[in-house]
Amino acid sequence: MINFQTSPEHYKHWKLSIDGIVATLSMDVQEDQTLAQGYKLKLNSYDLGVDIELADAIQRLRFEHPEVRAVVVTSLKPRIFCAGANIYMLGTSSHAFKVNFCKFTNETRCAIEDDSRHSGRRYIAALNGTASGGGYELAIACDEIYLVDDGNSAVSLPEVPLLGVLPGTGGLTRLVDKRKVRRDRADVFSTLAEGLKGKRAKDWGLIDDSFPTSKFQEAIDARVAQAVNLRPDENTQIGIRLNSLKFESTDDSRDYKYVSVKLNRDKRFADLTVRGPESDLPATLDKIHELGDGYWPLRAFRELDDVLLHLRVNEPEIGLVCLRTEGDLNRVLAVDQTLAANREHWLVRETLLNMARVLRRLDLTAKSFFAIIEPGSCFAGSLLELALSSDRIYMLNDPDQKIGIATSELNAGALPMSNGLTRLQSRFLAEPEKVVEVLAHKESFDTEAAEAAGLLTFAPDDLDWEDEIRLAIEERTSLSPDALTGMEASLRFAGPETMDTKIYGRLTAWQNWIFQRPNAVGPQGALTNYGKPTQAQFDYKRT
Amino acid sequence: MINFQTSPEHYKHWKLSIDGIVATLSMDVQEDQTLAQGYKLKLNSYDLGVDIELADAIQRLRFEHPEVRAVVVTSLKPRIFCAGANIYMLGTSSHAFKVNFCKFTNETRCAIEDDSRHSGRRYIAALNGTASGGGYELAIACDEIYLVDDGNSAVSLPEVPLLGVLPGTGGLTRLVDKRKVRRDRADVFSTLAEGLKGKRAKDWGLIDDSFPTSKFQEAIDARVAQAVNLRPDENTQIGIRLNSLKFESTDDSRDYKYVSVKLNRDKRFADLTVRGPESDLPATLDKIHELGDGYWPLRAFRELDDVLLHLRVNEPEIGLVCLRTEGDLNRVLAVDQTLAANREHWLVRETLLNMARVLRRLDLTAKSFFAIIEPGSCFAGSLLELALSSDRIYMLNDPDQKIGIATSELNAGALPMSNGLTRLQSRFLAEPEKVVEVLAHKESFDTEAAEAAGLLTFAPDDLDWEDEIRLAIEERTSLSPDALTGMEASLRFAGPETMDTKIYGRLTAWQNWIFQRPNAVGPQGALTNYGKPTQAQFDYKRT
Repeated sequence: MINFQTSPEHYKHWKLSIDGIVATLSMDVQEDQTLAQGYKLKLNSYDLGVDIELADAIQRLRFEHPEVRAVVVTSLKPRIFCAGANIYMLGTSSHAFKVNFCKFTNETRCAIEDDSRHSGRRYIAALNGTASGGGYELAIACDEIYLVDDGNSAVSLPEVPLLGVLPGTGGLTRLVDKRKVRRDRADVFSTLAEGLKGKRAKDWGLIDDSFPTSKFQEAIDARVAQAVNLRPDENTQIGIRLNSLKFESTDDSRDYKYVSVKLNRDKRFADLTVRGPESDLPATLDKIHELGDGYWPLRAFRELDDVLLHLRVNEPEIGLVCLRTEGDLNRVLAVDQTLAANREHWLVRETLLNMARVLRRLDLTAKSFFAIIEPGSCFAGSLLELALSSDRIYMLNDPDQKIGIATSELNAGALPMSNGLTRLQSRFLAEPEKVVEVLAHKESFDTEAAEAAGLLTFAPDDLDWEDEIRLAIEERTSLSPDALTGMEASLRFAGPETMDTKIYGRLTAWQNWIFQRPNAVGPQGALTNYGKPTQAQFDYKRT
Repeated sequence: MINFQTSPEHYKHWKLSIDGIVATLSMDVQEDQTLAQGYKLKLNSYDLGVDIELADAIQRLRFEHPEVRAVVVTSLKPRIFCAGANIYMLGTSSHAFKVNFCKFTNETRCAIEDDSRHSGRRYIAALNGTASGGGYELAIACDEIYLVDDGNSAVSLPEVPLLGVLPGTGGLTRLVDKRKVRRDRADVFSTLAEGLKGKRAKDWGLIDDSFPTSKFQEAIDARVAQAVNLRPDENTQIGIRLNSLKFESTDDSRDYKYVSVKLNRDKRFADLTVRGPESDLPATLDKIHELGDGYWPLRAFRELDDVLLHLRVNEPEIGLVCLRTEGDLNRVLAVDQTLAANREHWLVRETLLNMARVLRRLDLTAKSFFAIIEPGSCFAGSLLELALSSDRIYMLNDPDQKIGIATSELNAGALPMSNGLTRLQSRFLAEPEKVVEVLAHKESFDTEAAEAAGLLTFAPDDLDWEDEIRLAIEERTSLSPDALTGMEASLRFAGPETMDTKIYGRLTAWQNWIFQRPNAVGPQGALTNYGKPTQAQFDYKRT
């Protein structure tokens, strides 16, 4: 069972140090502290365990150290920044694990860019040694890249020439779309195992600058001094502590404070319930700060995040998640109102940005989601996004019972999808005026009003309800899980594309394809034979 | 050896009839006339042979029947429009063939949309019976879809529920991006084997209308009468004949009039040479019309198209194509000038649109391309696009020899990539001002000027030239062909995305992945077991 929770006291591979408004995140991978058996994490190469720590560190910077304005990402090992994902780990992992590993590392890289874009923290990759493969992909997720000029250190993407796979953690996309490296140069760089150094790396746009060893630290310090001035002053910021999330579990359930999941393993689906606030919550910033990580929108969505990761990695046979909510619609709306009114405050902003990231994690989860709306539920505002993220929305139509859903200001832009649209905009691509209508509807929608507004997929009446849900679940879980993954990846992201959707949609799909091909993973494939005395033997048919 | 050339006299599966300004393209697949052994094309299902005829018919409409303003796409079989790609053909084809087959059918669907968008011909799918899978995907490539309401006929995408693969010929993308069907409805539709009929199909946006059998023809006629008025009047248009392309071939070469390819099979690369006009060409429309399909830009690019398809399907082990040109730079520029000056005339417009489609076919070909620029070459304007389409551009730097490349007005927008940008814009995403500079440069660029302008990848001098080209070829063809395909699909299309790039980049990559998965093509996979007494057995792990 892989656990996604950690904290700096428990880090094995990273050191997070804070010096006033500058943080340093130093990689120092312990080669024997692996998540699985059979490989050693040499040369600051990483496995999922290393990346779980990195993701945690970025999350903690945002909540625990809001005063930090620049983050230096570097290595404590001499002459090597990071050698990327460990090849032997990849070579011995199942296809499903490789795919989930890459998805999580992609989300971590995107979280760095999210922090930079929305919270103004500047990430500076101080490459005191070679950054190859995923190591360079980590650097390219930062805002600035500086490489030591020691005659040896290079940046490289050796996946294609050495391993027969792609630099699949955003590398190819960020080369041409973020750094806008000319395509022919990107082609040369991506096929050159040894990579590029110094002047040519800078001329081609792969790094921002390089400095001799003796002047490296000084140059980084100078860049940091500039970077910290890029963000406007905010009020004195005192962070809040992110405590570990407690849950009780049995073999087929997990119960956090606001989130529960029940696994119906034999039927391959899970019921996932998010509970709304249990009482009226404070509306002032002081009180919210006092609540810290106990504040409902922060805690509930952190729990949701943890359970989504758990389901992805530890419960691969669960193909469908039925999303339910429990609680008081109006209490959720009141929280949304507070968040919307205070969104300029750093803690509220971070809380909203975290909610947005968790919802994007849901969009990107390779499981089907059905929202199930019954009496006692509270699909309002931020929780309505759970329904809007779902592949289908079922709402009971029973005039004898009170059931409602509602929008809030948060549905209007605070929680964007990876494609940059709101979920309402994605839903109503054909009828953009419906977005306006639905947002302007100030009361809750009963089932008929919700259906008329286009918010539901199906609204069975109480006689049909149980049968219809049961049949929908049975039918969904009987289908090919691979076809569903490809179908959902296509249908969930209509409309515009962004660098993120390119990474998750296009680059990932090609990498997943290559991860299935005999030329990579067959007995004679490049990934299988890396580091062995045997050599890869390719089937050279071009496909 | 698969031959991509055909003509209406040789069609087995389609009838193209012209009645004034309306064409009817009727599908009547002959079930025994298959391209390969082992399957029968029942129920208007298709294989590559059927689609080669469709592609030819669309091409001929554009050049031979410019007066046509509306195209009715229908079936001559009772109760069935088209059952899509033949499942047994897919089940027995190699992975590489499936991928190439889908790519070609995708290009044909995109060619329909290109004709509609740029030449104003309106495509009307008159579904006189059920359209399932690829049959509905053909319909959705048309501008309007009408379905007979006979109590039985439906539209459907049964790939996910029945076959464990995707409707991968653009279907999923066009559902949500072109017809903007709501994502949850698209989800239901794409998992419902029997599809939808009549009112619900219309309400959900899957069709534009349905009519009872007795009124179907009348309703289609009425729609056609409206559709022909959508295009502004043009001068009386008299088409030109597209004659079949003659070539001489040996085991390792093909020579057309303006295009030659030489296969270096043992080294897995080809030399492809495009020759410029052999004399000064006329600049008046009358004379151009008189030349017909002999006019250099039409003939040379049709030949290039044919050879690209040949290389894709018949020469899978050729991984790299070295693109060369031969001829007089100024003659190519003169042709470009004529084309640019007359682009409003239908024949010139169609000639340019064809060139653009051929160049997009090149962009989408899963082989590496290196442009090799030597003395005697004529990479100017439209032929410069060959270099700009290439993964790398090598130009000899020898001050003793005259070598030049040049831009023309055609590099400024007439030949867009699938992403909507020109190849110069894609190249200079980081420095858009360079596009302007390069286009403003009225003389030809010698090697040093071309390099300074950012147009070259490498410019070896005459001492290094041969070795450097040889080493580059050897290195490229030694790499994993699958990794190269994924890398090139990522690096070639930076910048914005369109429906076309989504189809070729995202949807295709997911489909290719699924086409590799045991759940589809393994001994217990859904595609393998379709129509057999055995049932598919899935590994339900979600990936």
